[in-house]
Amino acid sequence: MDNYTMLTDFYEITMANGFFNEGYKDTTVYFDMFFRTVPDGGGFAIMAGVEQAIDYLRNLKFTKEDIDYLRSKNMFSDGFLDYIENFEFCCDVWAIPEGTPIFPGEPILTVKGPAIQAQFIETMLLLTVNFQTLIATKSNRIARAAQGRAVMEFGARRAQGAYGAIYGARAAFIGGCSGTSNVLTDREFGVGALGTMAHSWVQMFDTEYEAFCAYARNYPDDTTLLIDTYNVLKSGLPNAIKAFDEVLKPLGKRPKGVRIDSGDITYLSKKCRKALDEAGYHDCKIVASNSLDEYIIRDMLIQGAQIDLFGVGERLITSKSNPVMGGVYKLVALEKEDGIIEPKIKISENVAKITTPCFKQVYRLYDKDTDKAIADVITLHGETIDENKPYELFDPEHTWKRKLVKNYYARPLLKEIFKNGKSVYDSPSVGEIRAYCEEQLDTLWDELKRFENPHKYYVDLSQKLWDIKNKLLRQVSIDE
Amino acid sequence: MDNYTMLTDFYEITMANGFFNEGYKDTTVYFDMFFRTVPDGGGFAIMAGVEQAIDYLRNLKFTKEDIDYLRSKNMFSDGFLDYIENFEFCCDVWAIPEGTPIFPGEPILTVKGPAIQAQFIETMLLLTVNFQTLIATKSNRIARAAQGRAVMEFGARRAQGAYGAIYGARAAFIGGCSGTSNVLTDREFGVGALGTMAHSWVQMFDTEYEAFCAYARNYPDDTTLLIDTYNVLKSGLPNAIKAFDEVLKPLGKRPKGVRIDSGDITYLSKKCRKALDEAGYHDCKIVASNSLDEYIIRDMLIQGAQIDLFGVGERLITSKSNPVMGGVYKLVALEKEDGIIEPKIKISENVAKITTPCFKQVYRLYDKDTDKAIADVITLHGETIDENKPYELFDPEHTWKRKLVKNYYARPLLKEIFKNGKSVYDSPSVGEIRAYCEEQLDTLWDELKRFENPHKYYVDLSQKLWDIKNKLLRQVSIDE
Repeated sequence: MDNYTMLTDFYEITMANGFFNEGYKDTTVYFDMFFRTVPDGGGFAIMAGVEQAIDYLRNLKFTKEDIDYLRSKNMFSDGFLDYIENFEFCCDVWAIPEGTPIFPGEPILTVKGPAIQAQFIETMLLLTVNFQTLIATKSNRIARAAQGRAVMEFGARRAQGAYGAIYGARAAFIGGCSGTSNVLTDREFGVGALGTMAHSWVQMFDTEYEAFCAYARNYPDDTTLLIDTYNVLKSGLPNAIKAFDEVLKPLGKRPKGVRIDSGDITYLSKKCRKALDEAGYHDCKIVASNSLDEYIIRDMLIQGAQIDLFGVGERLITSKSNPVMGGVYKLVALEKEDGIIEPKIKISENVAKITTPCFKQVYRLYDKDTDKAIADVITLHGETIDENKPYELFDPEHTWKRKLVKNYYARPLLKEIFKNGKSVYDSPSVGEIRAYCEEQLDTLWDELKRFENPHKYYVDLSQKLWDIKNKLLRQVSIDE
Repeated sequence: MDNYTMLTDFYEITMANGFFNEGYKDTTVYFDMFFRTVPDGGGFAIMAGVEQAIDYLRNLKFTKEDIDYLRSKNMFSDGFLDYIENFEFCCDVWAIPEGTPIFPGEPILTVKGPAIQAQFIETMLLLTVNFQTLIATKSNRIARAAQGRAVMEFGARRAQGAYGAIYGARAAFIGGCSGTSNVLTDREFGVGALGTMAHSWVQMFDTEYEAFCAYARNYPDDTTLLIDTYNVLKSGLPNAIKAFDEVLKPLGKRPKGVRIDSGDITYLSKKCRKALDEAGYHDCKIVASNSLDEYIIRDMLIQGAQIDLFGVGERLITSKSNPVMGGVYKLVALEKEDGIIEPKIKISENVAKITTPCFKQVYRLYDKDTDKAIADVITLHGETIDENKPYELFDPEHTWKRKLVKNYYARPLLKEIFKNGKSVYDSPSVGEIRAYCEEQLDTLWDELKRFENPHKYYVDLSQKLWDIKNKLLRQVSIDE
């Protein structure tokens, strides 16, 4: 893992230097990361990127080259440059574990620590969690559209840079893809890489049939043939069946599949299924690729496409229809010299942009009988929910909308990942995260899983937190 | 620079192993990279990412860990694994220099070398050039919309991964941005990083006025104040002017600027300009940020916004309105055992997807009087254009559309960057690339620079190349 210490916005450094010079070096502050809207208008996002955020924080260190660079700007005090030369990360950090469904407005990551440090790490924390959460969320939409069929991530060549390709493939796996074409991501995370041939393989040989036979000879246990280089029905499909018959059959091997990468794939897949079945290859899978996403896959399946595996490229690895996850990182409290924690609120004419103050926790309430998630409740950190008593939910904007929840259990979502600057969290393997994600998705009602117009999940505030927030809002309003 | 050797699609390795086993290890092949459509419907793209492609090729090397990983797949022959353990890159590579305006259908990068190598490097070459070209192209659109005003790249926190943030900022600079917020990109490439304060700076102090005074004390030569934390006109603007008067004026310093990050920025900027002018701060710049792109900036300026500098974030660093550059990498020729070079074509029912065969060069023809670019002509590699004779252009699809060009000069665009696997090209600095880009843009007619419905630039084939392509097309058609 690289040292990304200097991957930060310049203003993080001007502010850090300013905090240092103004005597705020050791002032303890609290920052929350949260997002305001779910990409693609979905009902939820999937948390991802925590392991890489941890790697980033563990590797925080300014090199001599960094210090020299900063000194050359003639903007920063010697005291500050000394401080960062001897920088030692000492914040506490909480995060919602990867693979958890998450909702707008709730803290998904919280940092407590000296102003100068908690501020500095904003850029890279946002970048890391925003990107992987975006791709895991998109991947899950696509996996849902495929209705149990396998989806492979094939997008490296159109990813937004190497990190996007590597960690996008990781996030895609967490969200529900079965594997990737990306060899490096497989080597690093063991997610399973797949891939057979490009059109160039077919073009390298004098005929398509020769190309297919050569491939089958080389990979008798893994023969998937790309059948659209010339013409799927007139050439690719009959040549593939002939190669299966003449190369694999004598070896006692069965073909793995055929891949279609262009044309009217729904129509072609039906023709291929019929021909393969008639030739005795019922077990030969049909793979589809070519600019697929959840909408196209849904339509293909509605029209009866005979596809067993979808290869999804650029529209997944960039979340093309919505390529930005708008997570933000906001100051929510600071400790005054007298030890009192002062809640902080950022107001806005746009009500949706008003932040929720205080050091907080998020509880998810589940129904005891169905294990379905009922609501998330944002509380003060340390506040507990007594599962033995009914819990009264209320809408934070329309407070007369109330609901008494009985027969439930509550689980805190934010887990401590750093304590005094030391990592205290063992990241699960991506396989474990993927399984956890699947399990957590089972707790969500189907109404939340629609691609368009999903139900809105309840994200409410505890009474105590609501009281503090509204007191602050009234104060600000009077100040104006 | 990292070793990205294993950042490749799995099929590159299955094909490489297959080429090796089939005796194609030393067969010389030719691959072209090209793209089919300009992002956002623009008239041209801006080539970028060549320096990083060179870094990638220079660092190609399989580690022991890589070999062990591949061996564990039980798919690859020992001979092949030996070959890659002792892998030595030996291809020739040509590329169009960074900062050059490029057009659909023309080769922007060409690789000549052993099949096994030229195929293998496909994924990372595409990824590298696709991404940076995408961002340089977007940046240029945004810079054009700003009509000479400075544009800063501010998108790191919403970039698609760390590489996207670092190299996206590099590409944005090439395309016309004046700098970035990204400290690492400045340290690496010297593009100039800027940034002052977030809302959290203002919130850290008991009052906005105190926050502004503290900032001005710390950065008297660089005081740009963020004035929208509470209310721009009622609070931020008067507090900023007061801080300028009371902190900077006694020091004999002038303020740099004020920044507005929310609300109706066009309206607010006019009010700010008036108030700043009346307070004697005519030289205080107004900076705008908040989800800007070329369309919003164009509209703001049409309505008279008083903005001197635009900070552009997520919509630039992800090219949000069109986040995928669809560059492809196709086999165009191979040398047979008898030394004859066989042109290769990939046909398709979709005419736009038919490739242009042969090892090629691209010439740009400029008018001698105006220095404006007239057309690009794709020729056979080695074919020359005699500038002393008129040159007859013709539309490759509608060949009766012809134009005789006189009084022109022709420049080859593809430059050799690797020879026998060794880099033979000195990458210019990003400052030089940016200046070259600006100069090259001056050679394009304004009609090409429209955001919507630009003129279509001529990209034609030489007669020789056209003859070969059409002969191949007729053959394929007869074969069917």
